[in-house]
Amino acid sequence: MTSRARSLWGWGWDDKLPDEAARAALGAQLAGLLGVPAPAPGAPPTPESAVVPPPRLAIPAELSRFATDDREARARRTYGRAYPDLVRAFSGDFSPAPDLVLTPEDEDDVVASLAWAEREGVAVVPYGGGTSVVGGVEAPRDRPKATLDLARLRLVLEVDQVSRAARIQAGALGPDLEQQLSAHGLTLRHYPQSFEFSTLGGWIATRAGGHYATLMTHVDDLVEAVRMVTPRGVLATRRLPASGAGPSPERLVLGSEGALGVITEAWMRVVPRPRFRASAVVHFRAFTGACAGARAVAQARLFPANCRVLDEEEARLNFVADDGSALLLLGFESADHPVTHELERAVALAVAEGGACPRGVTVKDDGARGGDAAAERWRQAFFDGPYLQSALVTMGFVVDTFETACTWAALPSLDAEVRAAVTEAMRRELGGGRITCRFTHVYPDGPAPYYTWIAPPAPGRQIEAWTAVKRAASDAISRAGGTITHHHAVGRTHRPWYDRERPDAFALALRGAKLALDPAGVLNPGVLIDP
Amino acid sequence: MTSRARSLWGWGWDDKLPDEAARAALGAQLAGLLGVPAPAPGAPPTPESAVVPPPRLAIPAELSRFATDDREARARRTYGRAYPDLVRAFSGDFSPAPDLVLTPEDEDDVVASLAWAEREGVAVVPYGGGTSVVGGVEAPRDRPKATLDLARLRLVLEVDQVSRAARIQAGALGPDLEQQLSAHGLTLRHYPQSFEFSTLGGWIATRAGGHYATLMTHVDDLVEAVRMVTPRGVLATRRLPASGAGPSPERLVLGSEGALGVITEAWMRVVPRPRFRASAVVHFRAFTGACAGARAVAQARLFPANCRVLDEEEARLNFVADDGSALLLLGFESADHPVTHELERAVALAVAEGGACPRGVTVKDDGARGGDAAAERWRQAFFDGPYLQSALVTMGFVVDTFETACTWAALPSLDAEVRAAVTEAMRRELGGGRITCRFTHVYPDGPAPYYTWIAPPAPGRQIEAWTAVKRAASDAISRAGGTITHHHAVGRTHRPWYDRERPDAFALALRGAKLALDPAGVLNPGVLIDP
Repeated sequence: MTSRARSLWGWGWDDKLPDEAARAALGAQLAGLLGVPAPAPGAPPTPESAVVPPPRLAIPAELSRFATDDREARARRTYGRAYPDLVRAFSGDFSPAPDLVLTPEDEDDVVASLAWAEREGVAVVPYGGGTSVVGGVEAPRDRPKATLDLARLRLVLEVDQVSRAARIQAGALGPDLEQQLSAHGLTLRHYPQSFEFSTLGGWIATRAGGHYATLMTHVDDLVEAVRMVTPRGVLATRRLPASGAGPSPERLVLGSEGALGVITEAWMRVVPRPRFRASAVVHFRAFTGACAGARAVAQARLFPANCRVLDEEEARLNFVADDGSALLLLGFESADHPVTHELERAVALAVAEGGACPRGVTVKDDGARGGDAAAERWRQAFFDGPYLQSALVTMGFVVDTFETACTWAALPSLDAEVRAAVTEAMRRELGGGRITCRFTHVYPDGPAPYYTWIAPPAPGRQIEAWTAVKRAASDAISRAGGTITHHHAVGRTHRPWYDRERPDAFALALRGAKLALDPAGVLNPGVLIDP
Repeated sequence: MTSRARSLWGWGWDDKLPDEAARAALGAQLAGLLGVPAPAPGAPPTPESAVVPPPRLAIPAELSRFATDDREARARRTYGRAYPDLVRAFSGDFSPAPDLVLTPEDEDDVVASLAWAEREGVAVVPYGGGTSVVGGVEAPRDRPKATLDLARLRLVLEVDQVSRAARIQAGALGPDLEQQLSAHGLTLRHYPQSFEFSTLGGWIATRAGGHYATLMTHVDDLVEAVRMVTPRGVLATRRLPASGAGPSPERLVLGSEGALGVITEAWMRVVPRPRFRASAVVHFRAFTGACAGARAVAQARLFPANCRVLDEEEARLNFVADDGSALLLLGFESADHPVTHELERAVALAVAEGGACPRGVTVKDDGARGGDAAAERWRQAFFDGPYLQSALVTMGFVVDTFETACTWAALPSLDAEVRAAVTEAMRRELGGGRITCRFTHVYPDGPAPYYTWIAPPAPGRQIEAWTAVKRAASDAISRAGGTITHHHAVGRTHRPWYDRERPDAFALALRGAKLALDPAGVLNPGVLIDP
């Protein structure tokens, strides 16, 4: 627990946003890169300056112990952290604020909240850390709505050392649960970019992508059992390492995005902290070579924990390579045995695809963290990325990321189409911009490419321009056979493309499930499926 | 394709059933072990002697190209290969026969079949290889029913070498698809015990367990995309290595057991044939030691392809060990790199748990098949097991297998409860019997124990006695926190326990999905869920 303040509008801790001078310097640097005049940073909103509509709901007597209509509490839960969220919040516009904020103390409070919501026809938005980048926590204002914030449910309730599993409450943030698990010598090792500010329940609801570049790429693979409160009762699955009994109930909860119920806790598979690490950075002349290297490693079933491709510009902008190379970052880890052989084989495969490994292999068999220095720089840039985006928003830049997954066969055309579509949209809407690519995860049958795009300031029309570029990117992904999201979830932003990607017959089934569990349609309306 | 004849009533090829003299010798040996008089083998039924009710449906004109009411065709698709199926069929009783057999030539024929069935209110049983051991292909006779046999859809339609995936029709038997894939230098490497006689579609519909003892234990993990015909349209998922877009549609199809639709094809992840193999057999004084060894290996995340525990009696009866040991069979394989290090580490972990490795390690780095001779004997016994059961049925023995999965923490009490309950039920019903255990698959958080029980002949009341023992076993599993099935599926046999294991709220959701896709309830009534 900490007394540091979370940003009212931007990413993470308030005090980690670069100050005005630092932002101005950053803006000048980026403006130079993009060939536009340097913009001036604007001033962030304050709780006092925020424009928040009055609540349309009275606090219900039966929920009064954990309900509030406090203005700032509502402002703080108005948005996720998508680009349009940052822009609107930075401008002081909190018009989509919920009417009430509920912070249940236990599962019974969640049950009572849903019963009240169903009776009153109030929309309920389950809320973890509020880091959604797809509009997942912003229900429409067309009816009264309450945000159900799980922040008080943050305990590791039980640890099974024999089976290596832990029962954890859904509102636990990444650092919360890691701190509690470390007392038992264990770790979940699920590190999405949002790790510090997102919750276990949010990860499960959105099928978050985590630490492992292969094998256990999504939180899906770490869930042993789950509890979810629905308006028609608690869906509690049995603790099982595996089962073949019908369609997996956990897999219906995973990705349900608050539309089927409120996840309250889960039994998660945990591991001892790694002791053995080996890593290397392989340089390639071009992105295509690094892709071939990653494919070779993935198809050899070597299962690195880190297997990240950075294209030339991504490597340069993150100060990971200064020679114009595209990179393949490789890292293996184990709590049990040295992993040098695996790393060496992976490097050999990458070299056979045209790579070079100028700095050799870094081996740490003493439990020390970290690997190659360049890989560490990349890691830091990875966690700092969202702060950078917030800083750029204060100067009007239009900058965002998006991700997909596709087969290896589809990758060349998908990558070309996405880059062309986004470049053209940035040119048309914003006069120019850059797009870079990395892989966050790789599979034997394809990678998960992750794109960053960055374009000049567009004062007064940031959201309009962003919307056009986002549409161009999403259309290109959809046309080229990718998924609209590998781990950012569907939310409301991705709905048009998700609706096309999702098989119609599956939509019928999902709607049937939704109607059965939430007949009044109070749960997070607008995400995933319409009743 | 072969001209060998499938058994009308028992497992597999007709000519692989031991002849009468061999069965008599086997019966005498087993009777000796159980301390009962040797029984005499009975004579199997013939197509002529089989009692098959007349069909209650006329062949519909629009399906006449691929529909038949032939007596033998219907007899052959009456049952799966569960113990009660064998007993009834052996007695010549084919009273639950379908009224029609449909053998569609393509997906359009499947669509037409479902349209007809819905219009006429005919129950449709999707049928792959007919090897269900849980009553999955035997719909009740309470209304007219047709079996939809996918046997003509057996091609590998497309191979994507770059992404290592193949598009395969659902009716392909294991040998069908492996033969076609081998022409491309690839293999699916999914070897359930039923491999020779079961189909890709059946594996997907039942979440079959396969070759790999760790990691890719179920066919679930091999499915990249799937097509399933439902009465409300074709559910076709996109080829994706992974996605985070809502609940996984593939995971609703996996385990749907013909209740939501008819699977017609799938894109499957394939691999090159392994070149590098290393295996060892670790001996333990007792089963608990072998369990601890398997747990250590699974939790070290070494990912052996084979990690099978055999208890003392299982090892002895299968001629894998003659020293009274319990065993841990370990095997690693790779198409890319030597796996000796992994095996050596796994053996060291097992030895640290009290194991001994008297015959050392077998390494084959030349693509040759096979490992340790004892492990090979076990492998052969594994595939011959079902023939053995059929042979014993001809002499009235009551013998079956069942499987579960549980956490490591739950294992000791589950194993004790299951053995006690089954032993007591066998004593009460049959005057005695034996129960043995092996693990088919292991996970970091628990194993999948697989039990075999064998009891004296019960002429005239085999099914009654079997039912009592099966109930005792299933009750014990359920009480002890296991799943009613790790990979045999739910079917109709496991329904009472599945209905208790499955969360009620998930049942609501599944029923909602079923009603949306199959509103007339024609698809495989009785499995999984009732409308």
